[in-house]
Amino acid sequence: MKVLVHIDDAEQWRDALAERLPDAEVFTSSAPAEKRREADYLAVWKPSAELLGEPERLKGIVNLGAGVDALLGNPGLPEGVPIVKLRDAGMAELIGDYVRYGILHFQRDFDRYRRQQARHEWHERAVVDKADWPVGVLGLGAIGAKVAAMVAADGFPVHGWSRSPKSLDGITCHHGEAGLDALLGRVRSLVLLLPDTPATRHVIDAAALARLPEGATLINPGRGTLIDEADLLDALGPEREDDGETEGRLRGALLDAFPTEPLPGESPLWSHPRVWVTPHMAGPTPLGDALDQVAEALRAFAAGEPLDTVDPAAGY
Amino acid sequence: MKVLVHIDDAEQWRDALAERLPDAEVFTSSAPAEKRREADYLAVWKPSAELLGEPERLKGIVNLGAGVDALLGNPGLPEGVPIVKLRDAGMAELIGDYVRYGILHFQRDFDRYRRQQARHEWHERAVVDKADWPVGVLGLGAIGAKVAAMVAADGFPVHGWSRSPKSLDGITCHHGEAGLDALLGRVRSLVLLLPDTPATRHVIDAAALARLPEGATLINPGRGTLIDEADLLDALGPEREDDGETEGRLRGALLDAFPTEPLPGESPLWSHPRVWVTPHMAGPTPLGDALDQVAEALRAFAAGEPLDTVDPAAGY
Repeated sequence: MKVLVHIDDAEQWRDALAERLPDAEVFTSSAPAEKRREADYLAVWKPSAELLGEPERLKGIVNLGAGVDALLGNPGLPEGVPIVKLRDAGMAELIGDYVRYGILHFQRDFDRYRRQQARHEWHERAVVDKADWPVGVLGLGAIGAKVAAMVAADGFPVHGWSRSPKSLDGITCHHGEAGLDALLGRVRSLVLLLPDTPATRHVIDAAALARLPEGATLINPGRGTLIDEADLLDALGPEREDDGETEGRLRGALLDAFPTEPLPGESPLWSHPRVWVTPHMAGPTPLGDALDQVAEALRAFAAGEPLDTVDPAAGY
Repeated sequence: MKVLVHIDDAEQWRDALAERLPDAEVFTSSAPAEKRREADYLAVWKPSAELLGEPERLKGIVNLGAGVDALLGNPGLPEGVPIVKLRDAGMAELIGDYVRYGILHFQRDFDRYRRQQARHEWHERAVVDKADWPVGVLGLGAIGAKVAAMVAADGFPVHGWSRSPKSLDGITCHHGEAGLDALLGRVRSLVLLLPDTPATRHVIDAAALARLPEGATLINPGRGTLIDEADLLDALGPEREDDGETEGRLRGALLDAFPTEPLPGESPLWSHPRVWVTPHMAGPTPLGDALDQVAEALRAFAAGEPLDTVDPAAGY
């Protein structure tokens, strides 16, 4: 089995995979072209179209992350080659901690206290009880379901939403268009964990934002394309705070994902006082777990065992 | 039983206590002096020395918070009158959430990302695993023990410290001077939950800060007097960040308590880029639980039942 690895720090992945798969020949995309063409399997993160199209007898692809939108949209992707994506490899807990941080950030007024600090203003605010702080989680895949469970375990009422009906312990589950409206109308923090598909693009637009209660907050560790940025800025209200605390209908947003990354220097999100920008760090893949998954997927591919592959039509 | 209530919003407390104690006469400190002198019991938060000295046949005091340092230091406090303090009344969970937020704030680099945002800088940092982020909790009273357990449940290794030996499930417990040194040498986030006593004053001074590992972080939801502010500022390093990321030995601090509150407008802490100031909001007393405790303490006082009273010599 010949495996081509393409990702940042590919040498580290190559060596660790070679150790896990002693019978395999593992090399990186810096190998000569004739070697690259021989690859049976690709273990890749955001490969170029050229690299993706090179192998002449490709049998399978392992996507080195949970999001497959970049891969499925890559014009070099050969048709019919099965794709396995990394399942939550400790990622859900990392994303869960990001979300828990974000919820506490708003529920306990850390966003407002930080602005008060800039004004040297000492003013304690009444705490809204967790029981009165419903959280909505859009997307109940492996990661969304785990994050919803973590937030519920912290004591927040959690409403989850998925396209088709689901049932999860301790989570009020909604589905379909009507379910989305019902959820949006009642949550104080909205968490986006949907995949990037044509159906989810700009799911958070002016209409969705208008359904949120006054003073709601948004946390996006998911995909940048889920949000209509212009509508988001409108809902956040004016950038200037001459009176100290001008908040829009949407009180604030903690954003980790953007349609263009890195977030362009001229984006108004950088300097908006009620937007907290992080550089797509919510869900890095812990390497050890991920490597185990990649090795297992490659072994199962080679052995012809059934695998849970990506459905390109659905987009995940 | 005549009960004098003194606290902000005393009328609200008076009415709620009167409802819980139908046989008691409950009044606030705005009652006439002859009425105040008749009080059998005080339910008070930071009373004046005059108010504290007025009652002529005082049988007991309920301190309307967990910290008794202000009361014990009050020159009007009559000797020998038993004092009951509010135990953790949902406060520990509120303080625990504050601490969990603070730990994630530093472990997941939200402090650095916020400074990067000000520079429009997109730069993802490698996550330090929770297993490699030991947290120290100084003070293992009712609140410290609960907070330590919450942090441990989140997956962080937790070292606790108390003056005398303790044993807590899942917490590495240290005690005494040597134990404090050992703890300080190995934690990446240090949480202060000690009472304010002469023995704990400035426990965090230059020597203690020098024992912390390079890049450690400080979280103080406890008492402002625990920290020597000048030494803290030294350890934090220069305020200016001409090169973007000048961090001192102490990487940052999340502070909720200060020797003088409100924090004076001229304090350098307000504008230090690596200090996060909150206005003593970590552990507000949830009113319903607190009222139940006060009513129960007063009932037990009146019935002559044994009570867990404050030891003025120990200071808590």
